[in-house]
Amino acid sequence: MPHEKFKSCIDACYACATACDHCAVSCLDEQDVRSMARCIKLDLDCAEICRVAASYMARGSEFAQAICRLCAEVCQACAEECAKHQMNHCQRCAEECRRMAQMA
Amino acid sequence: MPHEKFKSCIDACYACATACDHCAVSCLDEQDVRSMARCIKLDLDCAEICRVAASYMARGSEFAQAICRLCAEVCQACAEECAKHQMNHCQRCAEECRRMAQMA
Amino acid sequence: MPHEKFKSCIDACYACATACDHCAVSCLDEQDVRSMARCIKLDLDCAEICRVAASYMARGSEFAQAICRLCAEVCQACAEECAKHQMNHCQRCAEECRRMAQMA
Amino acid sequence: MPHEKFKSCIDACYACATACDHCAVSCLDEQDVRSMARCIKLDLDCAEICRVAASYMARGSEFAQAICRLCAEVCQACAEECAKHQMNHCQRCAEECRRMAQMA
Repeated sequence: MPHEKFKSCIDACYACATACDHCAVSCLDEQDVRSMARCIKLDLDCAEICRVAASYMARGSEFAQAICRLCAEVCQACAEECAKHQMNHCQRCAEECRRMAQMA
Repeated sequence: MPHEKFKSCIDACYACATACDHCAVSCLDEQDVRSMARCIKLDLDCAEICRVAASYMARGSEFAQAICRLCAEVCQACAEECAKHQMNHCQRCAEECRRMAQMA
Repeated sequence: MPHEKFKSCIDACYACATACDHCAVSCLDEQDVRSMARCIKLDLDCAEICRVAASYMARGSEFAQAICRLCAEVCQACAEECAKHQMNHCQRCAEECRRMAQMA
Repeated sequence: MPHEKFKSCIDACYACATACDHCAVSCLDEQDVRSMARCIKLDLDCAEICRVAASYMARGSEFAQAICRLCAEVCQACAEECAKHQMNHCQRCAEECRRMAQMA
């Protein structure tokens, strides 16, 4: 039952994807959007790869570990960028990204 | 905070996607795979649209309701097909699909 | 051979997804990003659903038509928003979105 | 204009995703589905990562190269598995996977 083994990691992936999706659109509504460009771009990358990593794990894919490793790198970069910004959505996103990065 | 409003629905979507992903590959390992073909195909459709519906909701998209409606239809079809099969992964998947279909 | 029947529509979907992805990040680099917020959000919705519609068609899914209909609605909304902006990436994206909307 | 630089690689990704999606469902309709299980699983992995790699490239992501490298590995594994089977959809899929693997 591959998806059981990976359960907490799948949950972390999807929680991270949701935090990133929410952070991306929230950044777009900030006064100073221009300074949020890299944050938004990494949010998009991160949300996308988190969803794919979760689906690989749920299918018990032979590439599950490989995609989780790359996913952790993207999460790490996103966490570092988000951590620079004081807004709640960024801080929350940094936290979920860090949690995912440490798990993978 | 759109993703808060949608939180339980996003969770149901991702839980459903995971059940579908797991069901699809588990069906592939069954003795009588041929009779599982439609189940596997609907699992793939369902996992995919659940992930997209969740991301639309997390972004507070103006099309969130529209995709949730279609997602519920796919979930309903998948639930009905899965319910025909006695295996644990199918029964579990039927349950998650039904939960999502009723929520949307 | 379902993917043959759908071939030109699949191609239009992926061309549209690429135009939307490119438009989204190009908007983020514009001086007046704030006025591009809805454009970026629709680009993300559109790119995502175009990719799913294409995969449904390639798998000959029983929900291929249903997702193509919704995809056409999202494309239409994205085309109308993009058409308001003079930048090359927006005009190009409006064109691809319109092409997809008319095809589905 | 990042998506221009990557254009042929994006096209190869999406062509590969379509071949994989089509191969997966075609395998499900084969007499001897059981022997196609790994082929179907790799088709799913490959279609999914090809779509993500294409979207990263279209957005000019800083992780575009990293995901293309992993995408090429998945494509390579899928090509080798598909090449073992004589059906048209497998041979065609092997070809598209190989093309993508060599490009990345």
